[in-house]
Amino acid sequence: MDATTATTATNAMTAMNDASTSAALPGAVAALMGELPDLDWITDAVRVARLSQDFAWFSPVLDRQLKDKRADAVARPRTEDEIRALVGACVRHAVPITIRGSGTGNYGQTTPLAGGVVLDMSGYNALRWVRPGVARAQAGIRLGELEKQARATGQELRCLPSTYRSATLGGLFGGGFGGVGSINYGPLAAPGNVLGLRAMTIEAEPKVVELRGAEAMRMHHLWGTNGLVLELEIGLAPAHPWLETLVTFDDFAPALAFADALAHAPGLVKREVAFLASPVPDHLAQLAEHLPVGCHAVLSLVAEPGEEALRALADAHGGTLGYRRTAAEVQKSNRTLMEFTWNHTTLHALKVDKSLTYLQSSFVPGRHVEQITEMEGLLGGEVLMHAEFLRNLDGLVTCSALQLVRFTTEARLDEIMQIHRDRGVRINNPHVFVVEDGKAGGPLPAEVVAMKRRFDPHGLLNPGKLRDWPVRPPASPDTAPVEPAGAVA
Amino acid sequence: MDATTATTATNAMTAMNDASTSAALPGAVAALMGELPDLDWITDAVRVARLSQDFAWFSPVLDRQLKDKRADAVARPRTEDEIRALVGACVRHAVPITIRGSGTGNYGQTTPLAGGVVLDMSGYNALRWVRPGVARAQAGIRLGELEKQARATGQELRCLPSTYRSATLGGLFGGGFGGVGSINYGPLAAPGNVLGLRAMTIEAEPKVVELRGAEAMRMHHLWGTNGLVLELEIGLAPAHPWLETLVTFDDFAPALAFADALAHAPGLVKREVAFLASPVPDHLAQLAEHLPVGCHAVLSLVAEPGEEALRALADAHGGTLGYRRTAAEVQKSNRTLMEFTWNHTTLHALKVDKSLTYLQSSFVPGRHVEQITEMEGLLGGEVLMHAEFLRNLDGLVTCSALQLVRFTTEARLDEIMQIHRDRGVRINNPHVFVVEDGKAGGPLPAEVVAMKRRFDPHGLLNPGKLRDWPVRPPASPDTAPVEPAGAVA
Repeated sequence: MDATTATTATNAMTAMNDASTSAALPGAVAALMGELPDLDWITDAVRVARLSQDFAWFSPVLDRQLKDKRADAVARPRTEDEIRALVGACVRHAVPITIRGSGTGNYGQTTPLAGGVVLDMSGYNALRWVRPGVARAQAGIRLGELEKQARATGQELRCLPSTYRSATLGGLFGGGFGGVGSINYGPLAAPGNVLGLRAMTIEAEPKVVELRGAEAMRMHHLWGTNGLVLELEIGLAPAHPWLETLVTFDDFAPALAFADALAHAPGLVKREVAFLASPVPDHLAQLAEHLPVGCHAVLSLVAEPGEEALRALADAHGGTLGYRRTAAEVQKSNRTLMEFTWNHTTLHALKVDKSLTYLQSSFVPGRHVEQITEMEGLLGGEVLMHAEFLRNLDGLVTCSALQLVRFTTEARLDEIMQIHRDRGVRINNPHVFVVEDGKAGGPLPAEVVAMKRRFDPHGLLNPGKLRDWPVRPPASPDTAPVEPAGAVA
Repeated sequence: MDATTATTATNAMTAMNDASTSAALPGAVAALMGELPDLDWITDAVRVARLSQDFAWFSPVLDRQLKDKRADAVARPRTEDEIRALVGACVRHAVPITIRGSGTGNYGQTTPLAGGVVLDMSGYNALRWVRPGVARAQAGIRLGELEKQARATGQELRCLPSTYRSATLGGLFGGGFGGVGSINYGPLAAPGNVLGLRAMTIEAEPKVVELRGAEAMRMHHLWGTNGLVLELEIGLAPAHPWLETLVTFDDFAPALAFADALAHAPGLVKREVAFLASPVPDHLAQLAEHLPVGCHAVLSLVAEPGEEALRALADAHGGTLGYRRTAAEVQKSNRTLMEFTWNHTTLHALKVDKSLTYLQSSFVPGRHVEQITEMEGLLGGEVLMHAEFLRNLDGLVTCSALQLVRFTTEARLDEIMQIHRDRGVRINNPHVFVVEDGKAGGPLPAEVVAMKRRFDPHGLLNPGKLRDWPVRPPASPDTAPVEPAGAVA
């Protein structure tokens, strides 16, 4: 151990002593830092705290539960060998590992519940290749970079989260659902969107395995708890020159009808359709000049040759096409409406009104307009409708909503979610940090649990995030026990 | 008039005297041939007879009604000036005009009910331009040529009929519905698929007008009866390398379920999905080695990167992927499964069994699998199911079926159609030659009739094809009256 490393390790221990995690861990972490002195370690308390968090603060519930949780140290490997060495050492020392991309998720998936090491994948970010219809890259690549490389070949990503500038490919796979483009390709989970992946087992002698198709998807949206994804192979879409527009309306019903018609119109090529009911548009300060106060708005990206048909459809619904940027204008300005969609809408709104939180819900295809209208009638004023149009896993057009909620109490938040469920609207609860309680909606399928057993036999991937995985005894008697699941609830 | 022209005119009169159309017409036709000696005229009786027919013989009813109908002469202009001169002369002489592409339709739309001139547009076939997402061409261009030109820019047609090698763009617009690609873009009528057109009025001094969007679509599927389309501007799709496959099954239900799942799967990029229930595949002699006798088959074009997902889906449904051709193999062989879809299936079947005819029907989206299964239970053996998956005008996945029917009597054929209607299956009757009786399904919308009034004020476009258009007195007293609508029924 050279002087620099010793200092780093000492810093790490100081940082860890500040943390409220298991008292025995710092020794184990210090030991593995000593074993791997050449790794890029981060132990500065402020940075470790930041790298232990994501956008879980969108939820006042998660914020309360998770805000003090942090790693003992963060490691940022740059090669598969470094990752392998880190994983092997963590297993030998029974140190929990929490895998992280850029922390743009919002379920605390990057927040270690039991301390240990945050494995920051952002340095493992090489593009492997782009071919017609497919690309392959290391998990830490930023989606913006991947989109840029795809664009150079006349292609683009099928699912682009609004956080694409910073979000990583591995993060999207680990905690993402869909995004811009899901109106065509459905959620990321739809077969064909992710073709395969390369994953590492969390073992003293890590194994690396290629998984294809459905088997690969058993690691999807598990928040990094049942395998370490090194590399992903994804389907690409043909690129179009996207016209970005905002169409505004005086009334809720015609705005929603227009959005629904646009989402369905088979001859109108599009990448995004979002319905922002009043007063959601009033919260988008950066677009204020294009959004009359009190308006309902439909944000869309439509291929430029469809502009005449788009305008005809807007006219037929009594909408006013205000904001309009051609693909060339968007490229030149480097400013895109995509950064006002999905959970970016939430972010913009929370910036101007700290009392807001949000929901995630999905509607029954074909009944979505009716259900959205019903919920507006029941909860309008308290729950502000923001619905994203997409194809579901079965290819049917429907909406996922990311409603804003004027937060009062956790009890009322639960009540609001129950009102939705009682009327057949599915809630993907974003106010929980245990995998089974969120989108998974209950116990995990046996094949997902089997994947956990295969790839993380010692249960070291962020212990506490998976309820269905039994708490195991530590790997060796001289290391601390893993904190049991649910300890922070 | 020079000697050649005189001979041509004489030939024309000889040909016309053989025809059983209005006795007064040949004089008028001879007069306009005399006025336009430089036009490419066809008067040979055999060629005129052929150029007066299309694939209406698929229907024993239409075959009986239309097989003897023919023009007095055929003209094949090559420039807009020639078309204008011909139209002007026809109006002055009150000669009916029947517009024709390559005659690949099947409603007798190229068959003149009242004689006169067939205006063969196949010589007016220049590509105007191909741009990102859009192409514009003269109506007589063959779709195969247009597809080739689009392919050179990385694009392809959105709707390709199985007859694309010979069918023209104008013919597709005039009598086509959709085709290969409609699984993505819906029928040709969906806004965004046809962006505009240039049309000529049928007047002594013809006017040329550009129509856009919805207005242009008022000339769609009117069988060339309410305007002369000179040029069309259409939306293009990005080209993909299409893998062509046949997946075969022992049983009806899993084959249909597989086709439906494939059609819906949002992450599986496709251009075509056809369900061929047993014994339809037994009629495809050219594919016999790939289709076990008695099998049910699903024919598809899926983008090559989707092959793993396609195979997984086929496996899950118990299907066997037999025939498989990559895009490169298809290009090299110049043989494509697209020529076994839509009404080409019908053509192949009729070649091996002359007793067959067919239906055209559309199912209720979301109930299509159930309805198809019900109809198979009711009529299997007599009606052989061939269903094409597509998005409908509202973007919902459903089927259009082109069932084969073991023909016995016209009364039984009517009965079979009624059995479908009684169970909520829409019949687009392909055994009628009057526009309103077919897909239009009744009286024409006022705006379509207004288009007729505007573009064909003298009612010269194939009189008899439109029931809603009043029979008008001839333009001048020295020409013969136009044969009234419905005269051949």
